Amino acid sequence: MKLLQVDFPSQGPFGEAMAQAYKDLAEDIAQEKGLIWKIWTENKETQEAGGIYLFADEENAKRYLDKHSKRLEGFGVQGIRARIFDVNGPLSRIDKAPIQF
Amino acid sequence: MKLLQVDFPSQGPFGEAMAQAYKDLAEDIAQEKGLIWKIWTENKETQEAGGIYLFADEENAKRYLDKHSKRLEGFGVQGIRARIFDVNGPLSRIDKAPIQF
Repeated sequence: MKLLQVDFPSQGPFGEAMAQAYKDLAEDIAQEKGLIWKIWTENKETQEAGGIYLFADEENAKRYLDKHSKRLEGFGVQGIRARIFDVNGPLSRIDKAPIQF
Repeated sequence: MKLLQVDFPSQGPFGEAMAQAYKDLAEDIAQEKGLIWKIWTENKETQEAGGIYLFADEENAKRYLDKHSKRLEGFGVQGIRARIFDVNGPLSRIDKAPIQF
């Protein structure tokens, strides 16, 4: 498994308006090959948004990141920051992480 | 709920050695007030590590971040990057996020 962490400056929409605006995109993302889950993140005060994703493997995490970065750039987003991490299983288990290892 | 995203440069330990080195710390973190879970992240190739946390509220996320940043600095860590986000519930639900809303 790989964890993909993405964030970027955003002028919104946030909250319910964001949920409306990106409902179709979320449904599309749910079908991504190798995706286990995505948590959608947002901060209206700091004008940032992003996502935390769990993928089954690095190949799909990288493939999705490339695709999603191009999509965000198409939306006019600049300053995307992305990191791909391994998950430390034993430590995450101790801290009740919601992952099936 | 608030999601806390933290990462920083790390020269290790990684993997099993990391799990051994920070077992006691993980057990301590599991007792943090307001913590729902933590996912421990690491990347040996890029020499980075961090954590994704879900907290019950902003007050505890900020309190923990202040405490943990000082602890990391005590370990000699520099360049800590931290962000506190809201979770967009409807979009995260569509993407199977492991959160009880």
